[in-house]
Amino acid sequence: MADAAVTFGDRTPPQVAPLNPPERSLFGPGPTPVHPRVMRAMAAPVLGHLDPDFQQIMAEVSDLLRYVFGTTNPVTFPVPATGTGGMEAALVNAIAPGDPVVIGVNGYFGNRMVQMAEKFGGQVTRVDAPWGEVIPPERFLAAARASGARVAAVVHAETSTGALQPLAEIAHGLRDLPEAPLFVVDCVTSLGAHPVEVDALGIDIAYSGSQKALSAPSGLSPITFGPRAIERIAGRARPVGSWYLDEALLASYWGDARPRAYHHTASAPLVYALHEALRIVAEEGLPARAERHARNHEAFRRGVEGLGTELHAREGHRLWTLNTVRVPAGADMAATQRRLLDEYGIEIGAGMGELAGKVWRVGLMGYGSQRRNVALLLAAFGELLHEDGLLADAGAGVAAANRAYAQGAKEPALVAD
Amino acid sequence: MADAAVTFGDRTPPQVAPLNPPERSLFGPGPTPVHPRVMRAMAAPVLGHLDPDFQQIMAEVSDLLRYVFGTTNPVTFPVPATGTGGMEAALVNAIAPGDPVVIGVNGYFGNRMVQMAEKFGGQVTRVDAPWGEVIPPERFLAAARASGARVAAVVHAETSTGALQPLAEIAHGLRDLPEAPLFVVDCVTSLGAHPVEVDALGIDIAYSGSQKALSAPSGLSPITFGPRAIERIAGRARPVGSWYLDEALLASYWGDARPRAYHHTASAPLVYALHEALRIVAEEGLPARAERHARNHEAFRRGVEGLGTELHAREGHRLWTLNTVRVPAGADMAATQRRLLDEYGIEIGAGMGELAGKVWRVGLMGYGSQRRNVALLLAAFGELLHEDGLLADAGAGVAAANRAYAQGAKEPALVAD
Repeated sequence: MADAAVTFGDRTPPQVAPLNPPERSLFGPGPTPVHPRVMRAMAAPVLGHLDPDFQQIMAEVSDLLRYVFGTTNPVTFPVPATGTGGMEAALVNAIAPGDPVVIGVNGYFGNRMVQMAEKFGGQVTRVDAPWGEVIPPERFLAAARASGARVAAVVHAETSTGALQPLAEIAHGLRDLPEAPLFVVDCVTSLGAHPVEVDALGIDIAYSGSQKALSAPSGLSPITFGPRAIERIAGRARPVGSWYLDEALLASYWGDARPRAYHHTASAPLVYALHEALRIVAEEGLPARAERHARNHEAFRRGVEGLGTELHAREGHRLWTLNTVRVPAGADMAATQRRLLDEYGIEIGAGMGELAGKVWRVGLMGYGSQRRNVALLLAAFGELLHEDGLLADAGAGVAAANRAYAQGAKEPALVAD
Repeated sequence: MADAAVTFGDRTPPQVAPLNPPERSLFGPGPTPVHPRVMRAMAAPVLGHLDPDFQQIMAEVSDLLRYVFGTTNPVTFPVPATGTGGMEAALVNAIAPGDPVVIGVNGYFGNRMVQMAEKFGGQVTRVDAPWGEVIPPERFLAAARASGARVAAVVHAETSTGALQPLAEIAHGLRDLPEAPLFVVDCVTSLGAHPVEVDALGIDIAYSGSQKALSAPSGLSPITFGPRAIERIAGRARPVGSWYLDEALLASYWGDARPRAYHHTASAPLVYALHEALRIVAEEGLPARAERHARNHEAFRRGVEGLGTELHAREGHRLWTLNTVRVPAGADMAATQRRLLDEYGIEIGAGMGELAGKVWRVGLMGYGSQRRNVALLLAAFGELLHEDGLLADAGAGVAAANRAYAQGAKEPALVAD
């Protein structure tokens, strides 16, 4: 009956118990708490990628992404990969072998960009700044000019340090350079919280992740390619060195072309999740969403000072989404982090690279940016520092945050569940 | 209060209605019907990728994948991308620029392998066969020998044609060649249904997709790298041309190394889905699962003959998972496909490439390989062909399938929900 003999050697199936993951409060650098509406959206019936109903959903996702990116770029879609895959998609398309590339490095993700750019044959000039600082625009622009850069890339929101990179001066300066470098911006931890202004600034390629301030699970990377980027890619002498992440192939699949060209099998649950997450962003509106992030960040910042420590990133350049909290003298970064997980079910991130052992990384993004989460974090930190004999009043952090909320406007209503 | 002015230009959020996708019977080439237990698993609380509980889940996924691949390879994990990304991961790691590569091309996916291999600098020798046939092992081996191939790749289950490629003779023959080419096998549409014997055959790299016979949503690509592949990759003079899909970086993230090296943010819902899908495979057991696929394929094949047509792929080399049904003279491939979707909610696939307009592609894989689905498909096809005046008895297909079931053993119980 069968076309081939069924032989499976002597394989024994492993005995694996059903999943039973605990519920965590996800206040690390990501993943962040997924909105309950997003969880429910994932349970909708799976559609094939050629189904007319699915193609409508794809078009809506692009529309919503254009709104959050601040762009009219037709080529705007989610890369079928995590934010790391989005970074690779941006750079592997933008950089042709031999291209001079300038990259700002003030944290882990700038460094990762350098590693990728070198893999793709870029001749990289690094513009370094201490972790927690931002890249001085004038130094970045000078390096771009001196190297004849064809591509210039920075990280808008450096998840490893909590620093927010100003973009406007760099964006404007790059446009005046004779080589007209493509401007590539990593918005993984800013999109959906901080303003991202692709068209107003003239950003050529921007990408993000689904699991940060958009509050969907990871697995998709929103990206947008502007007309200058598309022209550059189309004119490459050597083809793009990736098939999976090739902009033209992806655009034929996700774009307005009819019939769509088959490229990959879109993950319906992830697309549904992103669709619902973006609808929630649109309902709240970007200005209200930014204000909410700013308010909770500010209250948390004051709470941290109430705990007797401070944020690491320089004032005036701090992310609202990701806070680097300096570990007070006498405290043990890893031990406190572990106790938060074990005793409170709270996940936070450890310091990386230059900040290893020196900071805790605390994310308050998207659905996670709520007053109750600020209170929980400060209460837990306060208790642990108090137990370690490093803080007289365990409630000092929460009290400081509460004063901040009392002084400001009341917290805007969260999106209804 | 905020670190930067909140400006969003004059953006207006698009008005997008909530998702309401219809339920489809997914009998195309993929995605396939997701098992209800898998849908429920996706709703479990999201964990961070550094959470000890998540790392346990990752280890279990690797164990289960080793079982279905038939391997003890330590480097066995899901690539954070669709099956297309798995193909790219296999080839971008295996092929160094300038390497002679031999690829069997008897359908769309063999052709895609050629496109990718050329992107990665491979000097490709194609071994072509008509769509629906298999690659003759002796021709493939002769081409590998003549070209001094460093990498040799075939598609085990050609989703575009329904053909199952015999692997043993090629696998054995390649081992005798002086250049000892790496043997790369695309198992996207075979893993979890047809036997895949990585260690017994000496396959060096095999990859698959989550949304075929494993019955999870798409978005992850199971892959396994054997010791010869890892040695070859580690010894490359030029580094792997991808960061996202770099085997060594992915293995440091997903493998047994402690501490794990950060690489990307794993998509917890997709990992949960794959974990549950693989547990279901282990519960049923691979031999019983293969037998179920074979039985339903055979009944469907006889039903197709009852409809007055036949399968396109050559007898003896037919997939159990994906059937290419010849469109009878007088029938309109696209119109029937569209009526199945509109009137029955059934998704099937269209013929591609050499088979465009000539076949329907009907998937019966994983959870979808059920007697009731065979009956539904044959009933719907029978009715449409009858209405078109191409079939006297609309029930002839179902009747033929029923005779097949009656002659064989009764259908094994499906995995309980």
